[in-house]
Amino acid sequence: MTKKRIADYGIRIGSGERGARNRITDVPGVKVGHATIRDARHRTGVTIILPCEDNPFPNKLTAASFVQNGFGKTVGLVQIDELGTLETPIALTNTLNTGLVADALVSVMAERCAAEHIPMRSINPVVGETNDSRLNDILDRAVHEEDVRRAIESAGEDFEEGDVGAGAGTVCHGLKGGIGSASRVLRIAGGVYTLGVLVQSNHGCLEELTIRGRRIGEEIMRAQNRRARQEPQDLGSIMMIVATDLPVSDRQLRRILKRCSVGLARCGSYLGHGSGDVMIGFSTANRMPAGGMHRVLQQQVLTEHSLEQAFFAVAEATEEAVLNSLVAAKPQTAEDGTRYDSLADYLSGGSYDLG
Amino acid sequence: MTKKRIADYGIRIGSGERGARNRITDVPGVKVGHATIRDARHRTGVTIILPCEDNPFPNKLTAASFVQNGFGKTVGLVQIDELGTLETPIALTNTLNTGLVADALVSVMAERCAAEHIPMRSINPVVGETNDSRLNDILDRAVHEEDVRRAIESAGEDFEEGDVGAGAGTVCHGLKGGIGSASRVLRIAGGVYTLGVLVQSNHGCLEELTIRGRRIGEEIMRAQNRRARQEPQDLGSIMMIVATDLPVSDRQLRRILKRCSVGLARCGSYLGHGSGDVMIGFSTANRMPAGGMHRVLQQQVLTEHSLEQAFFAVAEATEEAVLNSLVAAKPQTAEDGTRYDSLADYLSGGSYDLG
Amino acid sequence: MTKKRIADYGIRIGSGERGARNRITDVPGVKVGHATIRDARHRTGVTIILPCEDNPFPNKLTAASFVQNGFGKTVGLVQIDELGTLETPIALTNTLNTGLVADALVSVMAERCAAEHIPMRSINPVVGETNDSRLNDILDRAVHEEDVRRAIESAGEDFEEGDVGAGAGTVCHGLKGGIGSASRVLRIAGGVYTLGVLVQSNHGCLEELTIRGRRIGEEIMRAQNRRARQEPQDLGSIMMIVATDLPVSDRQLRRILKRCSVGLARCGSYLGHGSGDVMIGFSTANRMPAGGMHRVLQQQVLTEHSLEQAFFAVAEATEEAVLNSLVAAKPQTAEDGTRYDSLADYLSGGSYDLG
Amino acid sequence: MTKKRIADYGIRIGSGERGARNRITDVPGVKVGHATIRDARHRTGVTIILPCEDNPFPNKLTAASFVQNGFGKTVGLVQIDELGTLETPIALTNTLNTGLVADALVSVMAERCAAEHIPMRSINPVVGETNDSRLNDILDRAVHEEDVRRAIESAGEDFEEGDVGAGAGTVCHGLKGGIGSASRVLRIAGGVYTLGVLVQSNHGCLEELTIRGRRIGEEIMRAQNRRARQEPQDLGSIMMIVATDLPVSDRQLRRILKRCSVGLARCGSYLGHGSGDVMIGFSTANRMPAGGMHRVLQQQVLTEHSLEQAFFAVAEATEEAVLNSLVAAKPQTAEDGTRYDSLADYLSGGSYDLG
Repeated sequence: MTKKRIADYGIRIGSGERGARNRITDVPGVKVGHATIRDARHRTGVTIILPCEDNPFPNKLTAASFVQNGFGKTVGLVQIDELGTLETPIALTNTLNTGLVADALVSVMAERCAAEHIPMRSINPVVGETNDSRLNDILDRAVHEEDVRRAIESAGEDFEEGDVGAGAGTVCHGLKGGIGSASRVLRIAGGVYTLGVLVQSNHGCLEELTIRGRRIGEEIMRAQNRRARQEPQDLGSIMMIVATDLPVSDRQLRRILKRCSVGLARCGSYLGHGSGDVMIGFSTANRMPAGGMHRVLQQQVLTEHSLEQAFFAVAEATEEAVLNSLVAAKPQTAEDGTRYDSLADYLSGGSYDLG
Repeated sequence: MTKKRIADYGIRIGSGERGARNRITDVPGVKVGHATIRDARHRTGVTIILPCEDNPFPNKLTAASFVQNGFGKTVGLVQIDELGTLETPIALTNTLNTGLVADALVSVMAERCAAEHIPMRSINPVVGETNDSRLNDILDRAVHEEDVRRAIESAGEDFEEGDVGAGAGTVCHGLKGGIGSASRVLRIAGGVYTLGVLVQSNHGCLEELTIRGRRIGEEIMRAQNRRARQEPQDLGSIMMIVATDLPVSDRQLRRILKRCSVGLARCGSYLGHGSGDVMIGFSTANRMPAGGMHRVLQQQVLTEHSLEQAFFAVAEATEEAVLNSLVAAKPQTAEDGTRYDSLADYLSGGSYDLG
Repeated sequence: MTKKRIADYGIRIGSGERGARNRITDVPGVKVGHATIRDARHRTGVTIILPCEDNPFPNKLTAASFVQNGFGKTVGLVQIDELGTLETPIALTNTLNTGLVADALVSVMAERCAAEHIPMRSINPVVGETNDSRLNDILDRAVHEEDVRRAIESAGEDFEEGDVGAGAGTVCHGLKGGIGSASRVLRIAGGVYTLGVLVQSNHGCLEELTIRGRRIGEEIMRAQNRRARQEPQDLGSIMMIVATDLPVSDRQLRRILKRCSVGLARCGSYLGHGSGDVMIGFSTANRMPAGGMHRVLQQQVLTEHSLEQAFFAVAEATEEAVLNSLVAAKPQTAEDGTRYDSLADYLSGGSYDLG
Repeated sequence: MTKKRIADYGIRIGSGERGARNRITDVPGVKVGHATIRDARHRTGVTIILPCEDNPFPNKLTAASFVQNGFGKTVGLVQIDELGTLETPIALTNTLNTGLVADALVSVMAERCAAEHIPMRSINPVVGETNDSRLNDILDRAVHEEDVRRAIESAGEDFEEGDVGAGAGTVCHGLKGGIGSASRVLRIAGGVYTLGVLVQSNHGCLEELTIRGRRIGEEIMRAQNRRARQEPQDLGSIMMIVATDLPVSDRQLRRILKRCSVGLARCGSYLGHGSGDVMIGFSTANRMPAGGMHRVLQQQVLTEHSLEQAFFAVAEATEEAVLNSLVAAKPQTAEDGTRYDSLADYLSGGSYDLG
């Protein structure tokens, strides 16, 4: 929790107003927890985003997804796209663990619904992933139901970034990646709202890493006499979770999600072929009751023009979340000897001072 | 206006409650007008659906589209899909006339906005089309701005079906097609709502024409000693406009539109390659103000479960609208001598009595 | 294997030429296997479609999906839509078992790739589902890895239909549903091709059940003095798997998939809100090598016009597959005493003879 | 033609190899022409991209679109998305002129097909647009058929950039925008290919303008003692046309198009609400014959992995095309007195030297 963040290096990303924690948990009700698996063969885990304090199943949240690059295995988007709602926590894990983690979410939700006497025979678990096989024996599918439970139990408003949970084994821009987050405060039509982003960063190549316009990746390579690859190779996998209390429809939320990629581009990504770049978003503002009722619901939605600020904010928050994931991650060495440095090592050295 | 409709032959389509006119204009505020062009070389025209009494530009309607088959030239869907709103009347015409008709809608809306002192420098005209070149010299693009104006001026709640307006030259299931409409009344959550459909029918093949399960197309061919084609050929082009006062979001409206194809299938279509099958829908329930305001709007949306009735209704109303387009159309003979009969001729003869 | 099929009752669906088995396995290389779980509390299972004899991972198949109704939990569509390929068998199971079954597919494929010395650290398991909770204690997630293995081992070209595998507990049009299949032979441009469909039917309401245009569901209800519901309720869940050896691109395959719903509509479905109607298709004609090679591949694709026959065929084959699933399923009684009849009981009785 | 380009200021965008002209016309067969309308009330026009030397109607090009922001009126995407082909030139113009320009394309193509004895009764004109109403009396729809003809006649491989054709009245990042282009050479699997981009730039705000990481927009504002707006306002409209001779499928082409937005982000755009950001792409490598033939076509497609270079290239080329549009445009003053500077004025002054 005392890990440094990109702002602690005097690097201010964008001009927007930050939330109190500058984390996705600035959105009221949102909590994040991790379970990290780190042993001789594994560096992996699970990160859980709880979208609300109460049970999301009987009282669903407005939700949307956008697939920037679908070379990925994210679970649960078919129903989000059809119904515009989220009814479980969102879990992030490694690529091959999505099945077990989805199953664990079903277990957890079944128990919670049973305890609350809410009938439940169908539920849509949402699980994102990136491929941590450079640092993790991914075929083992080391994340099990108890890890999902552990992550949920540990969830809070203050949560660790970097090489923890689903970020334990990820690599981003050739450095050690992981979990990162940031938030922005929006003042629209007399209301004060928050938009937060959490990323599981596992994309990009070192050559292209850019901070506030400076191509620091190239500088690092030059300093180390490393040569760039003959051809670009952005392995390109990142999950981006967007939470907000803005009163938006699922369509409007999807428009916001489409601007996350601006934040990636500012950090130097060209959205490579690699694997999936997937955005999932939810709003806590409009809740939808489950089940077979016939009712007319009252909802609040912003005028489209008011989304402008949210577009600006989500680009900035995504950019800052990626950089936070990088500075918070400790260096790791893979079994094959490849070392993935921490961005923090470069920023704390005098030569790359970007403040 | 005294043309017979499918129900006048004792053929009742589905079990739902019909609106007073059994037309799309049963949705309060909706009006329809035609301009028909019929001369030696042309059988074409334009049909206009006015979505509301007031100007839709400053106070837009919730809207959605669904493209079942995109082999078509419909204009205006990009913005409908992005913003979920309709800001002009919807025009239907022939395939090659969409450009001129879209331009005419801009003229008309520019004048109306100027007259009402509403600033307007960007507008999204919506124009659907089918290809009437079997009965019309389509390369001429015979529909001009004055026809669009004429159609708008003639718009009312009672409007003609069959070979009028944009249906003057269309062919459906090997017979003369055209404009058809139907509506259903929905009682949901204590409210009474209406859903109406208008079609421009230009699809299908005679072999497959089916009415209430009876393969009447085959019967007609047999009676005439006509042979079926070696291979199927559904030229497949139909525009389906859905209007409702149900309080639905654009996402929900799209879900409703996706069920129009059930009505087509019941009439014997297999949704052939031909040209475009396009659904455009709007709801008069939630209006969206134009322009640069920051505001939080109050909207009403149904619970998803309540859509079930709308799905049922739109399938029925589409089926009935197609059949109404067929019975209302008078027979036509093309320049090459091909005669397109009216379904009415077969239904009034004793041998095909389906009552 | 000696179960009757709809054609055995003299009911011929459509006019197309059937394949030798009139099953999806008429497409060369395709095999289907089941594992059925039937005990005091469970009627569920898994059905596996093997798309080719060889390992699909190193040599992927052209694939596409279309979501007619996304109120479902199908796994694997994000990558299919992005890359247009299938790299595992397709599994069908119950709604809450998709996680465990996806994980089992990963296990099976990891072993196969290891045995064949094919490097594999990322794979996209494809799992469809419908909700069998009327006849199955679904919260148990009774399908485990051994069942998936059992289904794969049992896979062959002749496979059982009805209440087996993933169809053990499904309900279709108020009757016992299950697995059904059909195929059509296509003669295009001098070549002979096959298109096959397999469904897991769990949708529809009895009132609307229609066979060759006859509303047999209404007749059954009348004969039993049952009253129709006040409002329609199509619980609407069906998985449709389409296999073909037609040389088509993923885009063309998606166009074919969109016509499956015609077959559903002919059987009386209006594509209700219920849960997901999902189509997944693959072609064995164009294979795509895995991995990081730079290569220009030679592919074969049909002219668009040639798809017409495939559209016609897939509508028919889906219709016949649904009916085969119904006649092959034996009646079942749920724990709450509700009895789900077999369509076969009605067809064999003299009064509903539709031949 | 002797206008400076961004590279002439010593500013090198990206690391890729440029084509001979560094224009979209480096793709063999592609030509570009303009017609500019500049009088007291108008600064507008039309820009035409001819995709091939021969008639594209009988022998269509592989094509795709991607709508990053659909607040726009682009014509023709429905059919491109369904059939994956382009059958006319692409025209760019102002927002309210799309109808007349689409109609003009129909005229031109009808004449060409008639002259070549190619039957044509249906055609899909493709017209993009941005809103030039800050410098143009847009309600006049000043672009007519003769302008479209003029643009086509003037088309060549060397074409002007900046405030010409459809770029005559556009504004980009608070400066005078317009037409810009760039290209990259790709060496893949032993072949040499070209990818070119042409933009009609009308998006962005000055505050955010960024060149090679330097926030030059902020610097300009500071130097002029201009204050940033209270809230961001990216009016956000840009058309991006991508041409290539890479052997790609329409799905692969769409993947390439999705990376254009990286180039926009690098220049400082956050993809604002404004109006439409639309990408349209075509490949000259795989041609598709028109009409009703049954045939199996041979096509070439790259392995997915080979797209990586195209992703990298399209991001760079889009970035450079936007900057070329800015430096080539001369300053303009609107009727209301607002002056839109040329970026060239700032770059040639010593203080903003970015070389």
